Amino acid sequence: MAILTAVDDPDDPRIDDYRDLTTADRRPDRPGGRGLVIAEGVVVVRRLLDSPYPVRSLLGVPRRLEELSGDLARLDVPAYATDADTMARAVGFHLNRGVLAVADRAAAPDLTGLLAGARSVAVCEGVGDHENLGSLFRNAAALGVDALLLGPGCSDPLYRRSVRVSMGHVLRVPFTRLAGGWPASLDTLRDAGFSVVALTPAPDAEPLATANLTGEKVALLLGAEGPGLTDEALAAADRRVRIPMAGGVDSLNVATAAAVAFHAVTGGG
Amino acid sequence: MAILTAVDDPDDPRIDDYRDLTTADRRPDRPGGRGLVIAEGVVVVRRLLDSPYPVRSLLGVPRRLEELSGDLARLDVPAYATDADTMARAVGFHLNRGVLAVADRAAAPDLTGLLAGARSVAVCEGVGDHENLGSLFRNAAALGVDALLLGPGCSDPLYRRSVRVSMGHVLRVPFTRLAGGWPASLDTLRDAGFSVVALTPAPDAEPLATANLTGEKVALLLGAEGPGLTDEALAAADRRVRIPMAGGVDSLNVATAAAVAFHAVTGGG
Repeated sequence: MAILTAVDDPDDPRIDDYRDLTTADRRPDRPGGRGLVIAEGVVVVRRLLDSPYPVRSLLGVPRRLEELSGDLARLDVPAYATDADTMARAVGFHLNRGVLAVADRAAAPDLTGLLAGARSVAVCEGVGDHENLGSLFRNAAALGVDALLLGPGCSDPLYRRSVRVSMGHVLRVPFTRLAGGWPASLDTLRDAGFSVVALTPAPDAEPLATANLTGEKVALLLGAEGPGLTDEALAAADRRVRIPMAGGVDSLNVATAAAVAFHAVTGGG
Repeated sequence: MAILTAVDDPDDPRIDDYRDLTTADRRPDRPGGRGLVIAEGVVVVRRLLDSPYPVRSLLGVPRRLEELSGDLARLDVPAYATDADTMARAVGFHLNRGVLAVADRAAAPDLTGLLAGARSVAVCEGVGDHENLGSLFRNAAALGVDALLLGPGCSDPLYRRSVRVSMGHVLRVPFTRLAGGWPASLDTLRDAGFSVVALTPAPDAEPLATANLTGEKVALLLGAEGPGLTDEALAAADRRVRIPMAGGVDSLNVATAAAVAFHAVTGGG
């Protein structure tokens, strides 16, 4: 059972994990910093509490901690209760959602084990935007994609903003970085029985609507908004599919395009 | 040809259209204010210049106005050149994109004419979030949906943030508010040969993947994230389709769910 402790001094060292979240060079959610995982708001905090990440503590206003009391009953970590003003002074900004939790990072899952149970995975190349990456996890979770694999150039899914935008699904959808050379590392997926399918706007790719992807194990290869997949990644794919775009329109946001493709792969969650 | 005029005083009355864009009670993009349409950045400004909205003027740093010189050659409006600091002081915040344009509103298109040429339309109920509404327009444009119709509770697509999030596509995808009682006004669509298809998470709705929507003229009915469509709207639909969701996951963002459904309706743009 969590130990509820009142904190009324923003400089209290017990809440150092939450300090100056906006100060770039001291950011505790950066791997170069303390590398903590930070969850904001009742829904996302609850996902953190249910995740494999070792929770260190919570900090929140009494009303929000109360909402989480059922979850806290199962946990043996400190829960610091404070008021919104003290919280704002410690954190560095006013937090509408009223509750935070921090956890340590956990070891990434083993790729072989992760692929063994999966029918569909997404593989990202160069997705450096934290919000896009967070949205990708949310969409993967909603549409039943089993895992996300990070190729070169992807940002950190455990960065605070990605956690928030994903609605906490970065804490639930398993992910790991692909080791080894790129795109040679895609062979591991092929060896595990996956068809590597690149999503690309290239006019000679197959239209997604008629590609019939539901019958096979699919590793969907996604590039960054703007530049898209590199030529090397495209060449390493078994198939290339496209979402036809109406004349003159910039491509969809990468997470939105991915959602359309995820649905074509899984038929929904 | 646009008349290029240097402005070095942030209080210059010629740039009053751009003043205090963040001050809620003076916001020129609010219908209660001057009701202006404001575009930010080269891409979106270009879409405004290409739109039916009567452009009043531009304000930008020389480099951005230079990028638009081809477009400006065809236009007979003032283009005010200034520096980033003067611009920030007039506008009320620093504008990374370096150029703005304002236009007057235009009369909404006639519903009958709009439906006559359309094969697929989206109908929104209660989409009050400006960013979601903007994203809906972007996705409709990309995936070839011909028009957006606004039922009760929808926000203003011409609000500055919606214009920006839509990448300017609110200026290209025709839209109008549905007049008459709701949801009785959906009969107009049915009379024009559209099948009214509600997107809903209801478990007894048809899965989108097997609903086969490409053969008919579809009016896709979309509700707000969270509450979803009202019972009245659902009851007024001819069919109900759902995107199956993986266990325990909040529904997709409304614009993302709409993109998945738009693709199922149009097969892409």
